Amino acid sequence: MAEVNRQILLVSRPQGAASTDNFKLVETPLAPLADGEVRVRNHYLSLDPYMRGRMNDTKSYAAPQPLNEVMIGGTAGEVVESKNAAFKAGDKVVGMFGWQEFGTSDGKGLQKVDDTHVPLSAYLGPVGMPGATGWYGLNRIIAPKAGETVVVSAASGAVGSVVGQLAKLAGARAVGIAGGAEKCRYVVETLGFDACVDYKAGNLYQDLKAATPTGVDGCFENVGGDGLDATLARMNAFGRIAVCGYIAGYDGVPVPLKHPSLILTQRLLVQGFIITEHLDVWPVALKELGTLVAQKKLHYRESIAHGLENAPEAFLGMLKGRNFGKQLVKLI
Amino acid sequence: MAEVNRQILLVSRPQGAASTDNFKLVETPLAPLADGEVRVRNHYLSLDPYMRGRMNDTKSYAAPQPLNEVMIGGTAGEVVESKNAAFKAGDKVVGMFGWQEFGTSDGKGLQKVDDTHVPLSAYLGPVGMPGATGWYGLNRIIAPKAGETVVVSAASGAVGSVVGQLAKLAGARAVGIAGGAEKCRYVVETLGFDACVDYKAGNLYQDLKAATPTGVDGCFENVGGDGLDATLARMNAFGRIAVCGYIAGYDGVPVPLKHPSLILTQRLLVQGFIITEHLDVWPVALKELGTLVAQKKLHYRESIAHGLENAPEAFLGMLKGRNFGKQLVKLI
Repeated sequence: MAEVNRQILLVSRPQGAASTDNFKLVETPLAPLADGEVRVRNHYLSLDPYMRGRMNDTKSYAAPQPLNEVMIGGTAGEVVESKNAAFKAGDKVVGMFGWQEFGTSDGKGLQKVDDTHVPLSAYLGPVGMPGATGWYGLNRIIAPKAGETVVVSAASGAVGSVVGQLAKLAGARAVGIAGGAEKCRYVVETLGFDACVDYKAGNLYQDLKAATPTGVDGCFENVGGDGLDATLARMNAFGRIAVCGYIAGYDGVPVPLKHPSLILTQRLLVQGFIITEHLDVWPVALKELGTLVAQKKLHYRESIAHGLENAPEAFLGMLKGRNFGKQLVKLI
Repeated sequence: MAEVNRQILLVSRPQGAASTDNFKLVETPLAPLADGEVRVRNHYLSLDPYMRGRMNDTKSYAAPQPLNEVMIGGTAGEVVESKNAAFKAGDKVVGMFGWQEFGTSDGKGLQKVDDTHVPLSAYLGPVGMPGATGWYGLNRIIAPKAGETVVVSAASGAVGSVVGQLAKLAGARAVGIAGGAEKCRYVVETLGFDACVDYKAGNLYQDLKAATPTGVDGCFENVGGDGLDATLARMNAFGRIAVCGYIAGYDGVPVPLKHPSLILTQRLLVQGFIITEHLDVWPVALKELGTLVAQKKLHYRESIAHGLENAPEAFLGMLKGRNFGKQLVKLI
């Protein structure tokens, strides 16, 4: 039993782009478990774009990540010691322990998962928060009809990949936006999207237009900026835009929307959401997604960094699109 | 019986701002009525911001106004001759005859109205299309709860004045945005809004902040641009924005939305709509609005230009906010 816990704290807020200097690795002794507590060895740490928002001290849906505390984050791991009747050593669990090797909890917010048919890490991806996010935005906001076209930004990512595949299962045309030929090839060939536009190729609007010959009925927005401007210009009447992420604005420089009047002229619905405010849909969403993963009908890809000390670098890389699929840190 | 009909045609499309040169007054002989037809002497011509959009030849919710045809528009008048069993001379009717003194129709789209308790012109304002527009956006999109704050741009106008008064009746705080001290005084003192911000005073955001101490829950947007940017920055979580007009962008220069990421961080609903696509609500809306007008519980104000030949000038003035209340042209 290790007696030291390695943790990464947020020690300063970004001025513009985030950097590794905003984080600090510390070692903290592990206190003995109290009655009712459970200790988890984290195997995987989830890195997600929303964390960048939490690093800022600005008005948002969630309180900022406090300074000098363990950086927030979802985790998947194994119970190593338990003084809580609901858990026993060996249980696989998903929680929100953040960027650290061990988590100690009274059991609240800790969920046992079955990794027989679904790999443990998938509970941080397609069968976890990113999957539920994609499921909610697609089914509850966009609600595509067969034959409609759905555009998804960050299409090879943890959320986007789920959105496009579910759109296809619903009979819609799925068009991704991703950065680079390799990601676009994956989105079409492995994930089964009908088309994917490489925003790095320099012809975003023209390429999107070619990929959406009948216009766009649904947009699942993870990024904002140029991709959203281009998609908005392709929206059909009564289109729906689910706003799930706005990476383009995270560094503090506001990214305007160029033609907001299209919201009126095309009578669009634009709905921002965060999945933790819709906990009611998680059971149905995760059951459906878990079944699809177990049946290998829902594909996903992981970018895995190794070792807690590499989490900051992996996180910053993800914000720049250097990951390819769900970004994880493997801790053990 | 006059044998000549005076009409105003759209003869060219605006390059930038619209001008009187885009219109032309013509005289056309009136053909004898055919069986089934009805002839109306228009008393009032309605001038509305949407008409500016129709002057452009761009993708929008409605086909552009064709060149060299009578300019589109709502009208209220009196039947002067009828070969249609459903109408008789003396009937008061509302229709879409456009910018001309006489209208001839087979009766389709022509609605008989009762001007005993509600003045004829009100059927082009609070008990007509502008009223239904305000009713729909407020009740079906914003749906304010008692104690919430609703911001309305163009607050002294035909639509905005209805929105704010209905918001007050629903127990909400109503805050207007209007141009000039006189309009703002009217909005507060006559219409009963809780506050009104004069966008011409030069402190739009600060003044709006002061007028919305608990933030903004609903926004009824008629204008776009700076007012919308300021309101967006004041939106509370789960706020609703009904996008009804975008005057700021009508002249072809796109007016960006400065901080669209707030749609995500505040989980906003933004919904564009046009009232002619929601005909199902008109009967209930107009009945409620007609009752309120007859009971003098719903106030409205009209800007009346006289004579068809003055319609273009009055229309252009309205686009610049020179009207004060619903802009009409009185033809007789």
